[in-house]
Amino acid sequence: MLDAPVSQLSALVRGRKPGYSLDAPFYTAPAIFDADMEAIFARHWIYVGVEPDVPEAGDVMTVDVGKASVLIARDDDGAIKAFHNVCRHRGARLIDDEKTSVGNIVCRYHSWTYDLTGALVHAPHMGSSFDASCNGLKSVHLRSLEGLLFVCLADEPPADFDVMAARIGPYIAPHKVRDTKIAYQSDIIEMGNWKLAMENNRECYHCDANHPELTVPLFAYGFGFAPEEMDPIDLENAQRYEALRQTSHSQWEAMGLPSREIDELDTMVTGFRTERLPLDGDGESHTMDTRVACRLPLGALTNAKLGGLSFWTQPNSWHHFLGDHIVTFAVFPLDAGRTLVRTKWLVNKDAVEGVDYDIERLIEVWTATNAQDSALVAMCQSGVQNPAYEPGPYSPNTEMLVEKFCRWYIGRMTGFLDQ
Amino acid sequence: MLDAPVSQLSALVRGRKPGYSLDAPFYTAPAIFDADMEAIFARHWIYVGVEPDVPEAGDVMTVDVGKASVLIARDDDGAIKAFHNVCRHRGARLIDDEKTSVGNIVCRYHSWTYDLTGALVHAPHMGSSFDASCNGLKSVHLRSLEGLLFVCLADEPPADFDVMAARIGPYIAPHKVRDTKIAYQSDIIEMGNWKLAMENNRECYHCDANHPELTVPLFAYGFGFAPEEMDPIDLENAQRYEALRQTSHSQWEAMGLPSREIDELDTMVTGFRTERLPLDGDGESHTMDTRVACRLPLGALTNAKLGGLSFWTQPNSWHHFLGDHIVTFAVFPLDAGRTLVRTKWLVNKDAVEGVDYDIERLIEVWTATNAQDSALVAMCQSGVQNPAYEPGPYSPNTEMLVEKFCRWYIGRMTGFLDQ
Amino acid sequence: MLDAPVSQLSALVRGRKPGYSLDAPFYTAPAIFDADMEAIFARHWIYVGVEPDVPEAGDVMTVDVGKASVLIARDDDGAIKAFHNVCRHRGARLIDDEKTSVGNIVCRYHSWTYDLTGALVHAPHMGSSFDASCNGLKSVHLRSLEGLLFVCLADEPPADFDVMAARIGPYIAPHKVRDTKIAYQSDIIEMGNWKLAMENNRECYHCDANHPELTVPLFAYGFGFAPEEMDPIDLENAQRYEALRQTSHSQWEAMGLPSREIDELDTMVTGFRTERLPLDGDGESHTMDTRVACRLPLGALTNAKLGGLSFWTQPNSWHHFLGDHIVTFAVFPLDAGRTLVRTKWLVNKDAVEGVDYDIERLIEVWTATNAQDSALVAMCQSGVQNPAYEPGPYSPNTEMLVEKFCRWYIGRMTGFLDQ
Repeated sequence: MLDAPVSQLSALVRGRKPGYSLDAPFYTAPAIFDADMEAIFARHWIYVGVEPDVPEAGDVMTVDVGKASVLIARDDDGAIKAFHNVCRHRGARLIDDEKTSVGNIVCRYHSWTYDLTGALVHAPHMGSSFDASCNGLKSVHLRSLEGLLFVCLADEPPADFDVMAARIGPYIAPHKVRDTKIAYQSDIIEMGNWKLAMENNRECYHCDANHPELTVPLFAYGFGFAPEEMDPIDLENAQRYEALRQTSHSQWEAMGLPSREIDELDTMVTGFRTERLPLDGDGESHTMDTRVACRLPLGALTNAKLGGLSFWTQPNSWHHFLGDHIVTFAVFPLDAGRTLVRTKWLVNKDAVEGVDYDIERLIEVWTATNAQDSALVAMCQSGVQNPAYEPGPYSPNTEMLVEKFCRWYIGRMTGFLDQ
Repeated sequence: MLDAPVSQLSALVRGRKPGYSLDAPFYTAPAIFDADMEAIFARHWIYVGVEPDVPEAGDVMTVDVGKASVLIARDDDGAIKAFHNVCRHRGARLIDDEKTSVGNIVCRYHSWTYDLTGALVHAPHMGSSFDASCNGLKSVHLRSLEGLLFVCLADEPPADFDVMAARIGPYIAPHKVRDTKIAYQSDIIEMGNWKLAMENNRECYHCDANHPELTVPLFAYGFGFAPEEMDPIDLENAQRYEALRQTSHSQWEAMGLPSREIDELDTMVTGFRTERLPLDGDGESHTMDTRVACRLPLGALTNAKLGGLSFWTQPNSWHHFLGDHIVTFAVFPLDAGRTLVRTKWLVNKDAVEGVDYDIERLIEVWTATNAQDSALVAMCQSGVQNPAYEPGPYSPNTEMLVEKFCRWYIGRMTGFLDQ
Repeated sequence: MLDAPVSQLSALVRGRKPGYSLDAPFYTAPAIFDADMEAIFARHWIYVGVEPDVPEAGDVMTVDVGKASVLIARDDDGAIKAFHNVCRHRGARLIDDEKTSVGNIVCRYHSWTYDLTGALVHAPHMGSSFDASCNGLKSVHLRSLEGLLFVCLADEPPADFDVMAARIGPYIAPHKVRDTKIAYQSDIIEMGNWKLAMENNRECYHCDANHPELTVPLFAYGFGFAPEEMDPIDLENAQRYEALRQTSHSQWEAMGLPSREIDELDTMVTGFRTERLPLDGDGESHTMDTRVACRLPLGALTNAKLGGLSFWTQPNSWHHFLGDHIVTFAVFPLDAGRTLVRTKWLVNKDAVEGVDYDIERLIEVWTATNAQDSALVAMCQSGVQNPAYEPGPYSPNTEMLVEKFCRWYIGRMTGFLDQ
């Protein structure tokens, strides 16, 4: 009912000090949360899931983005479409479950019935003057990036999705998301603002002290460091890691696997970043012994030692593509202080659980890491609401991507306020 | 503390599109909920219960209407009076329980004591300058309509209660509410706005798909239909139903039971509607076999086949009077998204449980129906908060009374805003 | 985000009717709760605990005051210091537990490390341009009053703490708080505004009807009374009590124990009151048989019959010093309708549980009394939110200190609004 206090938000956005964490209201104020939902989540491409979430005709997935609920359905021709999950009659939510399978989409309230193209095909007792063609489901923009599904709630979505797709597509394509199945999904609610969840994802400065499992496959030198603080042995190791990275990139690219960094995190509306990085130990996967978790490789990949291809998008996702499985993360804000983090583990669709892969082994590293991150995010939320909190400095060596997230966010809010 | 954003509410009220469901903020905005409590629930006659709720001198019932709490007590002369349930000393809530029996009303905090006429009869240590006569309980307007209790929190209640009472009294009187007892009460909290709970009650368009139990005694043709959608057999059945309705009205009125429709739902401040309708099957009651649930009839009724007399009031009640029992429903808004629905089943006060009636059988149809309605209301609340929701069209054949509820509500809000 | 509706708060503050309870918004409005946190709890001396909460070097206690969290630590030199419990890097809460013991204070997020003087001694990867000396913990004003710890979140705390300390110090000193240990602590959340919790503490008008345990050691005549309501026998008993009080004061003061009333509850910014009062029965302690609960006396006290020294402070504490133990209470507002009441029972630090004292016996009276008070506060909160509530009159005989609390509060809010 109340207009957002635009002038105060505007002052906070303009007053942001580069290189420092955001002012407290960005993490705690319900009015800024509402502005985030309108300016960021209702106007950008939001990662929501993968094509294997709706593998068959009639399969439907629902996903809530802020107060919106989107229904993603595969129709009889195999096309995937997205609609608002709300009946055009009295506004009932059409489908409650996250996953289901239907012939038509039937509202339980008064049996209004829509087909999988969104057309209203049955609305009893509405009389002869009623025009069903004006009462079909409202559609939502949907794009599939090699099997990764993004929706945009705006009438005119950011056009640079195509630019991202063209550049990142060749990196992802060999892992063939469309030929996978979802082996496991976890939903956790982190007790912190969505931006704290994102910022936490955008640095590994905290990994050494908090992620004993994740740091088995990941090289510590990949997290960044201050050279002036290192002793000669450390520096030599870091140089050795950098040489390995360059050599690996060359080898992988020779195999037809694009690997070198692309970073458009704060230079595009649809900000993203990618790079394929070598792994420690046997170098095969994000597992506790760094060997593959699934015996069947993804797609046509034949060599297990492909490192880990990471793909980050603004505002709400990150993904790790290994040779044998994919781990993909979506962040859904719930309110100023709560965020849903949804993780899916994908394996070759022909892999058999218990034969080709063991669920516990597959999910072990990221289940532990997610729980640790959740505790860190809650610790931050608890701290930033303290009146004594003031924005602190980011490390120029280890928190560059956090800074890029903040810069992207502030830029997008500026654009929203200026329009 | 904040003034309601009157101009925005006013724009929404004036902008309501007739024949369509209400704009989302009417169902979701806390500021409009507060306005509803002030404009509707604090200024109209609110149904709260029945005389048999306080059968004996000293019996007290408390009922919360919005943030108000009202204490309804039968005094030593048998008169029923209503007071605000708050001590005049430090503001403590006087009685917590929904039902109790007392000599005087004693505040547990400092023992201030009021008699059942509301007079302060004891206030220790207040000193000689204290005037007890200025510190009695504040009274609340109370009216009994043949045993149905209505309160009004306003200083000057709507005067047309008497008009409603004069017209509806003869319909209800033969069922003798005052000679009943409460066989069972259920309180359920529906996860939706109170207006969604009321709108759901004001149509049976949804009955066919959702209420397998209720549609045993109720005729489907009574719910309304679009003639142009019906085949010849359906139409002939509908005509047969209409003939039965007319015949039944004539027979019942000849027995001294007024039965024909009165509809003042959107034409009076104290809006109401009534009609006695034939029942399907054996036609006796709202039970799974359509036979009476209680062997003792109500009042002096001798014929069991009396159909069902329904009585609806704005803003918060509906009632079904059968030959053997009465089911009465009160709606109490809790917040923008939660509503208490209180149902009481009344039988002849001389009926003996287990002998004359079986509780499970008595409450079976409406317990199931309430649970189904609760799920529908929650489904609507979930949908209308979706930013993609927009008001949808009511069926001119099956949702006329929903439209009347909305028209009454918008009219009363307009009056409130114009004053 | 929103400015407090200062003009409305100002009108309520100016409109307060002396001798009557406060207007409802003071107990229920979130905006006034926020103002209370800013005007009262962020600008006055708040009682938070006792020196024995952090007995050893490295011991740390955290206490939340509104949205602030304060970390109280004893350093290696035995000095107690207070800091804001928030990391200067990304704002993480540093210590979650209420009590812990540390070498340094290490943020779990990125290992920033502070010593017990608050200095930042380690911040990896921050680079050569980073100045650790600008990033130490922010300190909080802390004072110990003979072992009772008070903090003030303001930059410039009220100066009259010293006046209070000089006057009350000699009363408390003989009980030697620093030589005690915490035998038991209870935290209860009362479902009412913090001012209702305080007002409830500031009178014993309610004791007779609600506290059967507390009225064993306490004399009913000490609660105040209206002489005109008493019969001759009552009056004679009251006079006898008054004579005992005077005699006891003289005896105790001759023993070096200051005992006579000091009342500055509404005459100082740091308002307080004290008096040592005789106890009923054997007159030794707040126990069910009025005998000591701990065989070892406090400090150098030798006579058990020392009555009970009470010490009340604005805005959030009260304390009872007996010969054998101390009970100390702190009130921490959680939101407009919830308040944490923390009670600590202290005994001689050399006392052995099970030998010198029994926990159940020690805490029996105040555990029961706290539970009873909690129910009364909830009953009041439920009542004052009723739109029918209006401020009621305080008894001039039994609620003088409640009036002083309200007067102090209104005075402090006036000062805040006028600045």
